[in-house]
Amino acid sequence: MSSRFDTPTDAEDAYYDAIEEVDLDKMMSVWEDSTESTCLLPMRPLQNGTEAIRELWQPMLDPKMQLNITVNHIQWIEQGDIAIHLLEELVTLSETAERQPPIYAINIYRRGDDGWRLLSHVNSPAPPPPDMILP
Amino acid sequence: MSSRFDTPTDAEDAYYDAIEEVDLDKMMSVWEDSTESTCLLPMRPLQNGTEAIRELWQPMLDPKMQLNITVNHIQWIEQGDIAIHLLEELVTLSETAERQPPIYAINIYRRGDDGWRLLSHVNSPAPPPPDMILP
Repeated sequence: MSSRFDTPTDAEDAYYDAIEEVDLDKMMSVWEDSTESTCLLPMRPLQNGTEAIRELWQPMLDPKMQLNITVNHIQWIEQGDIAIHLLEELVTLSETAERQPPIYAINIYRRGDDGWRLLSHVNSPAPPPPDMILP
Repeated sequence: MSSRFDTPTDAEDAYYDAIEEVDLDKMMSVWEDSTESTCLLPMRPLQNGTEAIRELWQPMLDPKMQLNITVNHIQWIEQGDIAIHLLEELVTLSETAERQPPIYAINIYRRGDDGWRLLSHVNSPAPPPPDMILP
């Protein structure tokens, strides 16, 4: 797949669309194809490079466990060919409508010859909101 | 304090030294003095801006709960005026020698007129190593 993302926002929209659409090719089209790309999902080992990131996402993009993600924007920083987005992800499992504790994400995009790509995605658990009772 | 850091590594060394030396002024000298600076410590709310970051660190830089941090380098990316460092922090509480589960950190540095400063520090828990029994 040879999508081109003219802005970091275009790449980010495609990332979250790929999760909701359970579309591994779309997901991989967002990432910079390099050994420097890194993906850290909650409580999972950090993955480096295109192949490891594909192997991480493949079993997760499963229609049976489709995720709905709502995103709250916290901060955008653009500096030359790098764009950094801090946000909060609110995840719901489609099947059970079970609300998960919020998760922070830091998404770093890099501009190359073929537009903007996701260079790094790092999740970190956020403290649960006061009204949320955890198991 | 008007330290100058000529490389991102100099700024990073000062950051971890400030924690080990329990030195709030040194800690604050590392940060970019702006509303864009962000600090996310494990399971704490994200803090934005110099004042909020100072308030976050002040009670933590307490000689009675001194932390020893060993750092494992995972990846450095430099792109123009931005440097991104992924690493693993291994934290030990000095008083009890209690070993904590590992923590990932992503440190983002930005070069300005007065050298390199820490723009963003984001921690995320890492999966515990197989030989580590958690309470």
